[in-house]
Amino acid sequence: MGGDHAPQAPIAGALRALAELPPQHHIDLIGRSAVVRAELDAQLAAHAEFAEHRSRISIVDAPDVIEMTDKPTVALRGKQQSSMVVGLRRCVDGLDEGFVSAGNTGAQMAASTVLFKLHAGLTRPAIGAMVPTAQQPVLILDAGANVDCSAEELVQFARIGDVYARHLLGRTLPGIGLLSIGEEAEKGNSAVKEAHQLLRKADLNFIGNIEGRDIPNGACDGSPLDVVVCDGFVGNVLLKFYESVAPFLIGVVAKSVGLDTATVTRGLKQLDVDEYGGAPLLGVRGVSIISHGSSSPRALKNAIRMAFTASESGMNEEMGRRLAATNGNAA
Amino acid sequence: MGGDHAPQAPIAGALRALAELPPQHHIDLIGRSAVVRAELDAQLAAHAEFAEHRSRISIVDAPDVIEMTDKPTVALRGKQQSSMVVGLRRCVDGLDEGFVSAGNTGAQMAASTVLFKLHAGLTRPAIGAMVPTAQQPVLILDAGANVDCSAEELVQFARIGDVYARHLLGRTLPGIGLLSIGEEAEKGNSAVKEAHQLLRKADLNFIGNIEGRDIPNGACDGSPLDVVVCDGFVGNVLLKFYESVAPFLIGVVAKSVGLDTATVTRGLKQLDVDEYGGAPLLGVRGVSIISHGSSSPRALKNAIRMAFTASESGMNEEMGRRLAATNGNAA
Repeated sequence: MGGDHAPQAPIAGALRALAELPPQHHIDLIGRSAVVRAELDAQLAAHAEFAEHRSRISIVDAPDVIEMTDKPTVALRGKQQSSMVVGLRRCVDGLDEGFVSAGNTGAQMAASTVLFKLHAGLTRPAIGAMVPTAQQPVLILDAGANVDCSAEELVQFARIGDVYARHLLGRTLPGIGLLSIGEEAEKGNSAVKEAHQLLRKADLNFIGNIEGRDIPNGACDGSPLDVVVCDGFVGNVLLKFYESVAPFLIGVVAKSVGLDTATVTRGLKQLDVDEYGGAPLLGVRGVSIISHGSSSPRALKNAIRMAFTASESGMNEEMGRRLAATNGNAA
Repeated sequence: MGGDHAPQAPIAGALRALAELPPQHHIDLIGRSAVVRAELDAQLAAHAEFAEHRSRISIVDAPDVIEMTDKPTVALRGKQQSSMVVGLRRCVDGLDEGFVSAGNTGAQMAASTVLFKLHAGLTRPAIGAMVPTAQQPVLILDAGANVDCSAEELVQFARIGDVYARHLLGRTLPGIGLLSIGEEAEKGNSAVKEAHQLLRKADLNFIGNIEGRDIPNGACDGSPLDVVVCDGFVGNVLLKFYESVAPFLIGVVAKSVGLDTATVTRGLKQLDVDEYGGAPLLGVRGVSIISHGSSSPRALKNAIRMAFTASESGMNEEMGRRLAATNGNAA
């Protein structure tokens, strides 16, 4: 029920996802069942090619709706029958393997943390966002779940980013960069300077401090960059800046070469913002994918694929093992 | 003597600046005099059109050289005869009205703060950097002088940014935005949340929290944006990201439309990074313009123009008056 285009966009995304996923996979649409059923029927009537997938869809009733303006903790306590709480609880109960929402991000983070719980050794979850670069896309972590992070929390983000990059992105030895304002170890704010020292001793491929300029290059001094570690304030500012500066710059270039912006944009597969469609909430013991409120059906389809892949990859089990091993070493 | 292309680029920039500035203006080239004189003579011999400006140039000997790797405070104490210290001291002594350097930024900040001193009511200076947007360029403040800023310091940046925008950019009622991760007053890290409350009560055109996405738009919810207030960690990351993401995106677009990147870039006057050529260090009682180490002669010419304009505009006198009035009100 969440997001700007609910329930149309999530249902359209689900139908498209089923067409791409192996036939044994199934999707539960969670929300006000009468509304969801009417929309599903309308979409199936309009798109005959999806009719064959009808048997792989169930509707689960969730009468409460968390509004985009609801406070996360209030929503969590007061709206136990919302699609957010019902859906996450189904994962905890083993009825579903992953959860995707374009609804209230704060509520999704809070509910995922409370219901899934964090892996041992973590104090906070983090949002991982993929951004395009001149090389392979990089994971920015944290992209907005946490502000005012400690050095230890930045190191936690590095650890969970490392597991995600190996399991979901297929990077064999992920290059972990710590976002700062200079490459030297003594550059940065106090949390970053302390995190730098901790990361140098960690069992990670820590490539050192990186600067804002290294992100679009996808590398720092020749070392490939896979994970950018930063607090959620910086990560969120950067991510939203990127989302906005790309169309601005494309528009300026299109105008200067005398082309229509839409024409130029269509040719830019590398910058397709729907390619990932969602950002995983990492560090929780479950799969919770956060999508933009304005997500298109294609973005939501890709977010659902991400949830399936995260579940099938065994990422969470590996994250638990890796963090337990680290905690054991530290003790 | 500072920067990657010294003394060639600064001297070439100075000659170009003299050609544009009113004839009563004069430039002092400060550095190892034999080296500077040889380079100046060579450039004058090669470019006959600059010969008429020779009488408006003096060479001031400064035998010490601050290296890019020198620690700022060590350089300041140990290299009293460097072009940095000699040049700033000439401003203090009334022999020059402004100082421009492409040398060691940390040393320039430290030396400018110690020698010029701060305006009353300020605890730190801030670097103001101009960035292009879909509307008018905006000033990002602080772009890297300070990390770990307090709420009060963010408010100081807003005050000095307001004066700069009025006096140097000609904005009549500058729109001041506080960079955060959501528009609501309760969004942000702890310093930003507190600064938001202070700015609402300040005698400024505070347009509220802005997000990363609002910067390329040059506006937030219809309010024109002139000054972006943030700590120097976020500002520096964002600025370096912008400097790098622009050529990356232009390259991607150029390739997709089958044009050469250099051809496309030449047409983009709006994104010309040399247009400002330098970033003013604001809050000090004097004019100190910080240029990139890699600055071109054209960038340095524009940085020198900025120094002249800053001096002639009476910006510093006005900043002192405005801050004194604020301090008086607060007392």
